[in-house]
Amino acid sequence: MRFVQGTAGGVIALGIACGVAVAQPAAANAAAQRAAVRSPDVQADGSVIFRLRAPDAKAVKVTGDFLASGTTLDAVKDDQGVWEAKSSPLPSDMFTYNFMVDGVRALDPSNPAVVRDGTWVESHVIIPGPLAELLDIKDVPHGRVTAVWYPSPTIGMSRRMMVYTPPGYEKGNDKYPVLYLLHGAGGDEEGWINRGRANYILDNLIAAGKAKPMIVVATNGMAANPAAPDDRPWRMLSAPASGQASGPGAMISGKFEESVMKDVIPFVESNFRVKASPADRALAGLSMGGYHTQRITNANPGAFQYIGVMSMGLFGGAAYNKEEHVAQLKKLKAANPKAYYIFCGKSDFVYKGVTELRALYDEIGLKYVYRESPGAHSWYNWRLYLTEFAPLLFQ
Amino acid sequence: MRFVQGTAGGVIALGIACGVAVAQPAAANAAAQRAAVRSPDVQADGSVIFRLRAPDAKAVKVTGDFLASGTTLDAVKDDQGVWEAKSSPLPSDMFTYNFMVDGVRALDPSNPAVVRDGTWVESHVIIPGPLAELLDIKDVPHGRVTAVWYPSPTIGMSRRMMVYTPPGYEKGNDKYPVLYLLHGAGGDEEGWINRGRANYILDNLIAAGKAKPMIVVATNGMAANPAAPDDRPWRMLSAPASGQASGPGAMISGKFEESVMKDVIPFVESNFRVKASPADRALAGLSMGGYHTQRITNANPGAFQYIGVMSMGLFGGAAYNKEEHVAQLKKLKAANPKAYYIFCGKSDFVYKGVTELRALYDEIGLKYVYRESPGAHSWYNWRLYLTEFAPLLFQ
Repeated sequence: MRFVQGTAGGVIALGIACGVAVAQPAAANAAAQRAAVRSPDVQADGSVIFRLRAPDAKAVKVTGDFLASGTTLDAVKDDQGVWEAKSSPLPSDMFTYNFMVDGVRALDPSNPAVVRDGTWVESHVIIPGPLAELLDIKDVPHGRVTAVWYPSPTIGMSRRMMVYTPPGYEKGNDKYPVLYLLHGAGGDEEGWINRGRANYILDNLIAAGKAKPMIVVATNGMAANPAAPDDRPWRMLSAPASGQASGPGAMISGKFEESVMKDVIPFVESNFRVKASPADRALAGLSMGGYHTQRITNANPGAFQYIGVMSMGLFGGAAYNKEEHVAQLKKLKAANPKAYYIFCGKSDFVYKGVTELRALYDEIGLKYVYRESPGAHSWYNWRLYLTEFAPLLFQ
Repeated sequence: MRFVQGTAGGVIALGIACGVAVAQPAAANAAAQRAAVRSPDVQADGSVIFRLRAPDAKAVKVTGDFLASGTTLDAVKDDQGVWEAKSSPLPSDMFTYNFMVDGVRALDPSNPAVVRDGTWVESHVIIPGPLAELLDIKDVPHGRVTAVWYPSPTIGMSRRMMVYTPPGYEKGNDKYPVLYLLHGAGGDEEGWINRGRANYILDNLIAAGKAKPMIVVATNGMAANPAAPDDRPWRMLSAPASGQASGPGAMISGKFEESVMKDVIPFVESNFRVKASPADRALAGLSMGGYHTQRITNANPGAFQYIGVMSMGLFGGAAYNKEEHVAQLKKLKAANPKAYYIFCGKSDFVYKGVTELRALYDEIGLKYVYRESPGAHSWYNWRLYLTEFAPLLFQ
């Protein structure tokens, strides 16, 4: 484990005693594969050809969020051992995919673009066009993204958040409004950056004058986890059945929601140059984060003037107390938020719950704007919602 | 692509027109797999059992940087379709691995720990013990890691660097010394963070009082690339034979080395609270970054009082001019750096070149410390070298 101190020009050293050696061949193979096989290959009509050299595989399929739920594309092998599958034409957007090689998920070795969302690591493709212009890295000023550890006495640990500061933040003394962005179940604080492209979406919107310069804070909504997997202690990853701490305990403890108000916001407001009024504070979340958003804003009427609930409806179940919910919503209505947006995909599995939530808000007279997109419960919608929500904020 | 503005409570919306839907089943499958199969399973003696459920695969192997170059572990399938392979006992450290499923590389679906280094995405395992204590996320104050874009007029583009600021940087007015860390060929600015764990190594060393609080700056050494793959414009990833821009043009243009002096250091020294004297400036790099380190420090004697060359020797070839090299080294000797370290693994493929470099330094009388470790050209050595180098700095 330790070196023995060497002298100048002298020889050395004890060390880690094992037969370790470089795995260069795998890297060389990957480079050769990239040279030989083009994938993903975006066609003029927006369809994508996926290719994988796998002469020894029995069956190769493609999974992806551009496919209907539970479906895959079957690939066909040519005489060179290269499997190929083609999607239908796709709209301008970013989509994620994997190969399934004899039943095992594999990244596209020809594609260097890889995003991680929780334990889900995928290749991605961008279909050029209008929405890609908002998601892509453009030649505009880029804000900074910082991984920040903060104390969370409410949850009882140090936790990690990602903070986007807009271009120019680091110079000057201006204070900025803050958008707090919450991820879904199984995700983590990096999701809105990695897969959500929130930093590049903001860069592009700000550069175009379509959004106000703002700080974006993405937290980790799984109360049992301090951070994304690689930023958690190894002992938390190496337990049997490891992975995300999940289930009702981690997701719906109420501790995370409490920590947003007691730990996250005070930390951000005392560690960054922030306008600390409700008119300069927005909260939005997707799926579980939409549930968290509801819970936090319901319990703290007036704390946020901008609220975005993405792909999450009425959260019923045995513990649901309609009377209490209605009482909270009436207080929220009285606080009169400047904007309350509900977003949902037309084929999202939470669609019915969203309809119920809207019906309840209509009953109470809580004003909101409902925005429905095609598609389901996936990131292509959440990124789209962010491109719509961010421009509305702090105007 | 766009919504039609909805009214409160009203219905909506045009949008991206395609048959997109959620890929929840893949996530559910991954969760089920994690629950059912334990992998990696670290044994008391440091050996690791790798397991993969793949009843339909014909052959499963394990690759990893703990194996001798070019070798793999063959896995054996049980009657449940779970493949298993066991390593020899490994020392306390972090190692990366993948499965090869019928010839295709695949992450371990049971393991949420995934690191990316250039286009190489791998699962990783940490063997508990002394070195793991330096690499792991411990209950100590954590510095911040920021992705920062900076102008590089020398290379002609905006480029991205990762900046570690030590705990406490953001409060107070102290100025800090800076360690510049350079990656190897095919890597990028995230390598020293992702796979190198530089931020956690520094957190742990600083908390133990073994290293001075310092800023660490990791740049992108491939002059053709502005940033890591997911932070490059899609057009740069989607060209035929995409991936890292590489080869002699990208690696050895000289532009990157020039940009470190003209763009990177002036930017860091004017954008962070930095002690800007040579005694507060260290430069170290691995492999190609060791070559860059030599080139930069040879051409700028006196600019860095601390120099670390990891796994890179004399860089010969047709263009090599010994006379010029010796003239530079004599100036560097006259500048009398406080510490010049050369690190190499005993079975590294650059070992001979390192021996030649040392012989040349001996001939000239340029003082250095040589530190040799077991093993080859891989990250377990570079992390080890950082744990040794960082404590020497700025004392």
